[in-house]
Amino acid sequence: MEDASPIYPADPWEVRETRFDPISARRSESIFALGNGYLGMRGTFEEGLEPLASSSARGTYLNGFYESAPIRYPEEAYGLARTGQTLVNVSDGQPIELRVEGERLAPGRGELEAYERRLDLRSGTLTRTLTWRSPTGRRVSLVIERLVSLRRREVAAIRYRVTAAGEPRDGPLEVELRSWLDGRVSNQAGGGDPRAGGMVGGSVLRTLAQSVDGRRLSLTQRTHASGLALACAAEHRLAAGPEAAPEAQQEPGTPGVRLAAWLEPGKSLVLEKTLAYVDSREVPEWALAERAAELAEAAAEAGFEALAREQRAALKAYWQRADIVVDGDDGIQQALRFGLFQLCQGVGRDGRASIAAKGLSGPGYDGHLFWDAELYVLPALLAGHPELARGMLLHRVRALDAARARAAELGHAGALYPWRTITGEEASSFFPAGTAQVHIDADIAYALERYLAATADDSLLWQGGLAMLVETARFWLSRGTFVARRGGAFCLHTVTGPDEYTAMVDNNTYTNLMARGHLRFAADTVARLQGQERFAEIAGELALTDDEVASWREAAERMALPFDTELGIHAQDDGFLDKEPWDPTTIPPERRPLLLHYHPLDIYRRQVLKQPDVVLAVYLREAEFSRAEARRDYQYYERLTTHDSSLSPCVHGIVAARLGRVEEAVGYLRTTARIDLDDINRNVEDGLHTAAMGGAVLGVLHGLAGMRVVATAAASAAAGADEPAAAASGEPLLSFVPRLPAAWRGYRFRLAFRGRLLEVAADREETGYRLLEGGAMSLLHRLEPVALTPGERASRPNGPRLRAVLFDLDGVLTDTAEYHYRAWQALADRLGVPFDRQVNEALRGVGRMASLERILARADRSYDAEEKARLADEKNRHYQELIESITPGDLLPGIPQLLAELQRAGLKLAVASASRNAPAVVRRLGIEDAVDVVVDAGAVVRGKPDPEVFQAAAEALGVLDEDCLGVEDAEAGVAAILGAGMAAVGVGGERVSAAHRVVEDTADLDLALLRDAFARAHGGP
Amino acid sequence: MEDASPIYPADPWEVRETRFDPISARRSESIFALGNGYLGMRGTFEEGLEPLASSSARGTYLNGFYESAPIRYPEEAYGLARTGQTLVNVSDGQPIELRVEGERLAPGRGELEAYERRLDLRSGTLTRTLTWRSPTGRRVSLVIERLVSLRRREVAAIRYRVTAAGEPRDGPLEVELRSWLDGRVSNQAGGGDPRAGGMVGGSVLRTLAQSVDGRRLSLTQRTHASGLALACAAEHRLAAGPEAAPEAQQEPGTPGVRLAAWLEPGKSLVLEKTLAYVDSREVPEWALAERAAELAEAAAEAGFEALAREQRAALKAYWQRADIVVDGDDGIQQALRFGLFQLCQGVGRDGRASIAAKGLSGPGYDGHLFWDAELYVLPALLAGHPELARGMLLHRVRALDAARARAAELGHAGALYPWRTITGEEASSFFPAGTAQVHIDADIAYALERYLAATADDSLLWQGGLAMLVETARFWLSRGTFVARRGGAFCLHTVTGPDEYTAMVDNNTYTNLMARGHLRFAADTVARLQGQERFAEIAGELALTDDEVASWREAAERMALPFDTELGIHAQDDGFLDKEPWDPTTIPPERRPLLLHYHPLDIYRRQVLKQPDVVLAVYLREAEFSRAEARRDYQYYERLTTHDSSLSPCVHGIVAARLGRVEEAVGYLRTTARIDLDDINRNVEDGLHTAAMGGAVLGVLHGLAGMRVVATAAASAAAGADEPAAAASGEPLLSFVPRLPAAWRGYRFRLAFRGRLLEVAADREETGYRLLEGGAMSLLHRLEPVALTPGERASRPNGPRLRAVLFDLDGVLTDTAEYHYRAWQALADRLGVPFDRQVNEALRGVGRMASLERILARADRSYDAEEKARLADEKNRHYQELIESITPGDLLPGIPQLLAELQRAGLKLAVASASRNAPAVVRRLGIEDAVDVVVDAGAVVRGKPDPEVFQAAAEALGVLDEDCLGVEDAEAGVAAILGAGMAAVGVGGERVSAAHRVVEDTADLDLALLRDAFARAHGGP
Repeated sequence: MEDASPIYPADPWEVRETRFDPISARRSESIFALGNGYLGMRGTFEEGLEPLASSSARGTYLNGFYESAPIRYPEEAYGLARTGQTLVNVSDGQPIELRVEGERLAPGRGELEAYERRLDLRSGTLTRTLTWRSPTGRRVSLVIERLVSLRRREVAAIRYRVTAAGEPRDGPLEVELRSWLDGRVSNQAGGGDPRAGGMVGGSVLRTLAQSVDGRRLSLTQRTHASGLALACAAEHRLAAGPEAAPEAQQEPGTPGVRLAAWLEPGKSLVLEKTLAYVDSREVPEWALAERAAELAEAAAEAGFEALAREQRAALKAYWQRADIVVDGDDGIQQALRFGLFQLCQGVGRDGRASIAAKGLSGPGYDGHLFWDAELYVLPALLAGHPELARGMLLHRVRALDAARARAAELGHAGALYPWRTITGEEASSFFPAGTAQVHIDADIAYALERYLAATADDSLLWQGGLAMLVETARFWLSRGTFVARRGGAFCLHTVTGPDEYTAMVDNNTYTNLMARGHLRFAADTVARLQGQERFAEIAGELALTDDEVASWREAAERMALPFDTELGIHAQDDGFLDKEPWDPTTIPPERRPLLLHYHPLDIYRRQVLKQPDVVLAVYLREAEFSRAEARRDYQYYERLTTHDSSLSPCVHGIVAARLGRVEEAVGYLRTTARIDLDDINRNVEDGLHTAAMGGAVLGVLHGLAGMRVVATAAASAAAGADEPAAAASGEPLLSFVPRLPAAWRGYRFRLAFRGRLLEVAADREETGYRLLEGGAMSLLHRLEPVALTPGERASRPNGPRLRAVLFDLDGVLTDTAEYHYRAWQALADRLGVPFDRQVNEALRGVGRMASLERILARADRSYDAEEKARLADEKNRHYQELIESITPGDLLPGIPQLLAELQRAGLKLAVASASRNAPAVVRRLGIEDAVDVVVDAGAVVRGKPDPEVFQAAAEALGVLDEDCLGVEDAEAGVAAILGAGMAAVGVGGERVSAAHRVVEDTADLDLALLRDAFARAHGGP
Repeated sequence: MEDASPIYPADPWEVRETRFDPISARRSESIFALGNGYLGMRGTFEEGLEPLASSSARGTYLNGFYESAPIRYPEEAYGLARTGQTLVNVSDGQPIELRVEGERLAPGRGELEAYERRLDLRSGTLTRTLTWRSPTGRRVSLVIERLVSLRRREVAAIRYRVTAAGEPRDGPLEVELRSWLDGRVSNQAGGGDPRAGGMVGGSVLRTLAQSVDGRRLSLTQRTHASGLALACAAEHRLAAGPEAAPEAQQEPGTPGVRLAAWLEPGKSLVLEKTLAYVDSREVPEWALAERAAELAEAAAEAGFEALAREQRAALKAYWQRADIVVDGDDGIQQALRFGLFQLCQGVGRDGRASIAAKGLSGPGYDGHLFWDAELYVLPALLAGHPELARGMLLHRVRALDAARARAAELGHAGALYPWRTITGEEASSFFPAGTAQVHIDADIAYALERYLAATADDSLLWQGGLAMLVETARFWLSRGTFVARRGGAFCLHTVTGPDEYTAMVDNNTYTNLMARGHLRFAADTVARLQGQERFAEIAGELALTDDEVASWREAAERMALPFDTELGIHAQDDGFLDKEPWDPTTIPPERRPLLLHYHPLDIYRRQVLKQPDVVLAVYLREAEFSRAEARRDYQYYERLTTHDSSLSPCVHGIVAARLGRVEEAVGYLRTTARIDLDDINRNVEDGLHTAAMGGAVLGVLHGLAGMRVVATAAASAAAGADEPAAAASGEPLLSFVPRLPAAWRGYRFRLAFRGRLLEVAADREETGYRLLEGGAMSLLHRLEPVALTPGERASRPNGPRLRAVLFDLDGVLTDTAEYHYRAWQALADRLGVPFDRQVNEALRGVGRMASLERILARADRSYDAEEKARLADEKNRHYQELIESITPGDLLPGIPQLLAELQRAGLKLAVASASRNAPAVVRRLGIEDAVDVVVDAGAVVRGKPDPEVFQAAAEALGVLDEDCLGVEDAEAGVAAILGAGMAAVGVGGERVSAAHRVVEDTADLDLALLRDAFARAHGGP
């Protein structure tokens, strides 16, 4: 969706609406929600929407404060989740009602002459500005400000300013404010959309006590089933205007106060309502009311102005490290900041809670915590605020016992985390798309791995993280099995991967790869800590043995990974590729999302994805994929993906960026970032999409900026001889491949990494790296090392640079093409199949079996697979005999000189050949030392024109594809080079005219010509 | 379970209990249930069990009379079943309460001096005989009889006889009877066991009208949601004893009457209570009460005695055709009759209803109709009473529109029948084990196919059966897909087969085979009817084209069938064999059935079966399996099957019997037949297991008697030259292979078949066939034709008879063993691998690749698969050159004479060889004409010692395995012959000593020796 006509005007630091529309009121209530990780309040109006109350969904939440109810199944089974959990809509502290001359401010009453609502992302304050003409004709202007304090987790405050308009001759105006706490709240009940929430509907709070004492209100309530209690206290202060005596108003469940005054025209009455919420998880029930009153009083004494100052300071500190600046795209800029602001508001602190799918902004998904907290939100927060990521992990650590109990209930060892939960117990009531998603364990371990890589903070391991890691790792061994008939592969049967449009399958590639990573990380961590005293103690408690750790490594090594050699792609699972493909573009918009319009069986039986599965693994476990596999996997699954999940577009964007598809990436980034502000999925009314907020941040960091944390080994390889200092120390390295969308001027962000703070700023030309805090470090820019010293800025160009030349062998370095021809001709003659040099031309760059197929296509009988294998073998043996006679003298004209010139220029060289005999030929040609890498057909899945052999060569050289140039004499070969995004030089005229430069003869090749081709490839003349 | 201590004593014609135990009251209430296909009454006591009422589950049912309620899911999705349905527990007509001197007959009050309850399977009457001493010390004896009329579908009757005991001096006894209709009934609510039912719990009937008029009671009620109404009327008659004036008793919902009298000692009071039920599906609501009263009155006028006579006559007609007589096993005899009786009571008539999983005997499975009606009950009734089978099919035909709507809802063409239902709408609320069982369509079509084969009653097709067949056939084409990467195989993805311990899999073998059979049957039926006028009309309405029918055939031909060539078995589905096997014998009894003690995912991820899946296909689609496959499939899956479903043991028993495993079969038959009377699954209290009742009947007919209906083509082949008359006419043929368990003396039954009535009686020696009705016919006995003329009895021996001799080739007919040796020696010499004649000895009977493996085991290097293929090829080409020189002179000594002797004796001859060159050798030996069949290694999946090659030869000859004798010179070959259950003759002394007779030399072979070996094999001297 383009942001040509956004719902909320694009502004870098605020979200604003200038018109009130009851139709979209619920959406705005989510957008304008405020919170601080503990207390959340939807952006409802203080006065409510009566008589349009049903257009509004009021909501106040305390993170993790839940009500439970038994889950009833129409058909029972053992081990189904038993306890439904819902984030409780608690006592409503917002209500303030205005009456002017006895007339209530309400929709449809009088006239709203001006309206604006504005969320300021720097001040953290929501401001509503109104001008209202009452039914009696009197005009007042209102400025209503609200904040939920980021410094005082229990506190929220409202400043309500009424100004009488008009001339002095109009006389004083009778103004009345009623303010109360509303305990008669209820939870929404479930409807047809499983995403909207509603496990425990209706009224769930019972009032234990309420009081009105002057301007002080208090309300204590308790849930029916979970037994949690809370108190809400409100303190009122008249900050300006005539004094007004408070009048107590007590209805059951709604302690309130009434303030009435006469206002002269031009004068204002300013009421500050300060709220405090505390709950029984940290304060004993008997002390709740008193504690809430103390907190409210203290905040009220400080006054709204002081609270607002605190708020601005807290946000300044947050933005200092979290902000992402985009130059050239206001829509994305605004959305990124809005998302970062909402993440800050939604995430629990210090391990008390994590972040729900909707944060604290609405009832959607019942306020449950899912895997996206770990995979989408956590890494986004980790970039700037590792302490928030730590709290999220600590929250999981604290739920370890529940996960152990769940694993035991299901007959497994170790711990299995719930698919969705508040309490730590499984609350997913449809196990095929819930409990079957056992990848949750690996997802949490992955987040822990990323956290440790970015912070080196082992203290979390000693605080329970190690036990969590071990218990989740051991789960896999009891859930999976080594299968003899698959060569002893470790298989995970009957699981569901992230793509919920396919359920209960065998060997889901994502799950298996994540489990592999999990098992290796666990084994590595155990090995790393083994010497330490505290380790021995914990390992003892866990009864962890060396044998068990060895079994983790074995399962990881032998993990089943379904792969289709024909297509050269990973199968989503064992059976996926057999299913009927379903092209999402053929599905009409009114039948989306599929989950609301097609029976699960009709979806499961087809190749169609809700969200990335293999592609998510490409992102998260990049090292498991060759560049060619990553490209093909992305291309194959992208066209089957509906993006019906808000978790989907961002991942596609990140992978697209890494594959160099920058404009596609920015399209996905826009959809992700603006999913809430543009209400793209049409369900913002149920709450905001926190995963998309995180995903948008990752879209810039991991996508456009190509940021990764790479292991030292990989980093050393990439860095080649210039091994950076950090690599030697064993620390992981930051790596960037920044890319810029065509319409952008630049972007910048900061990164906390292992005690350092780094600023990364990319513009159209280059990327600057500046170390703001911490000691010297190295990083990789486009796979090349950059050393940073404190305070200093290092910059590197973003564009491609010729770093490597990849040669085809046959017809480029030597004329083995002639030997091939002779061997084929001999075979064809023996079989009596017509063949000549002209037919042979068409075989350039074509692999052995494919060449044979083309030759046999002219035969007068068919050959079975066994015969073909024998024939190919026959030809090859003949060819091998012929090439025995090759010597350095067989290098084509000009090649020796060219290789020497390229070597002198410091370029890396590789041979990328369709022949399996390439290494032998290179040896006989005597250029073994000149060439850094030889990649032959045996190392790749798909031959030319698939770019794989060239990509494999570039990967082996540790060079980006776009920093390479390939030289080819075959049409298929040139296509392969171009497909890899490399510059191409063709040898042989017309045939290879698609290349950036073409020569007739190898003697015409020199570095200048190659550089020219490279420049042309990348937009040069 | 052995019937050593049965709950109910084994008696051929009755079920009796002599002790009342409240603990097991609910079980007996199911066992003693009465019904007539429309009205069912549980075997509760008229007076109830107050104060132990909770030990009782009263129930009165009208077949198909249901209440509905929305199904609520904790997590919603599109297309889930919306409407829960429950067979309603309707107005209770039983209540009669006895008071003696004001004291109520009730458990724990006074003393029960004698107690007996007896269900007479010939009279269809339930009789309770009591002697009770009241708390006041007075003794009465009671005889309470009850019947639900098989001739008057609305009517039930109770005869209640009270006799005052004691001496005349005890004086007259005050006796009071209160009788009423109880409308305050309710349905049971669901609990933890999904099999128990309870979709719509609580009170579902509202009373519309009630009346008491003298001795006439009437009650009219209506359900809340489904809107169905019923009336129940009762008429009371004093058949003996002092007159007693009726006194009306009216409480809301319970119209009643009170009768009191003084009884002299020795005198009796006999009250006849006659009930009639009618409902609004056939009688308008306003007329219900009147119609019920009329029917009750007419029945009351006839009197209990007349009703009992009618009942006996009706049952006599039923037993005439349905009875199965077992001589030598009282437990099974009683259980078979009990089952047949209950099927008669439970099945609806004339298409108005079919039969629920529990018949009309209890609330289990909510009174729903499942597939087992078609596959277990229908064929059992079809044997004796095709008209009942017809009614069941007609009921499905009438639900076609609902099935069409369901297919459309799920995005498919045609019709998809519901997995479970009363109304025709899907009521399964767990789709992975419900709607995913799309095999239901094929199951119904299969039943139709069987019905037509047995009756030739095309009228059902014209009455909607053809539309049903076409619409369900076309469903498959839209549900499945041709998969290019599997060679264009037609695949059915994401289905669940009968084994509900595995769900949502791809290409479930059962489903695919049944769909194949369905598509072929539909196409054949269309082809058969195509000329007829009515066909054109119906085809037009259905828009059926030739192309569509052609697509059915194509899908059937190309149906994917996962098969494991290593194990030689069908895989239950694409992924099944990879899963972790779970041996049911390792699961403790207290954790069974698995579905109540393990999470579905923990079950689904393993190889463990609830009930047969592939094995069910072996039974139903026998022609799809070679004998060897059937044997191996059975053996493989049998050890993984828990039999947690009551549908399981009977199928295993049938297949075991067909495989000749008679004692295993009778064990399964016993479990099946006595599942209710011995309460084997401990849930009889919820109702009887109708599928097991049908399964027990089939266990005798299709299992022990080996009955099949075979297509003419197959029959002709089997019959060989002696083609029976019927075969020529195109009619299907009955075929029997009767087997007798060791402890049985015999069994007999009758069969209705295409207008004939046949009696089949097997004893220890022979089976007699008698045509009781209809014209001359042929049938097959042990694959040999038997011609029957009306009235005449034909008998044939049951035991094996030598009909065919199967020869190994190498070393038996000729010495190709020498050529093999020479070819191997040459290869071994070339490779430098040690080899000699002694090593060669071990290769007898071993296939080519396996022989090569053994030779290469001594090589000093390893060979890859490609090399091995080449070496095997090399040896074979050499061997083929060597055998070019074979002539008839190479037949081993005595062989020409032996073959001639066997031919003269009319024996069939075959060559069963491990060599792929066998046909060529046979030709060169000049015995091509003498040998009927040559089976070589190319035709089989597994070589010797697997019996497959010998079984394949026997099958090709159209002879039972046990009627064959094999001649072998190799140990593995003898093992293969014995494994096939054949007689074996060994050539070569010690090496083949496992054979029944051994000769040193082929010259020693003659017919007498072969006959001797055959006799020894089958228990001879």
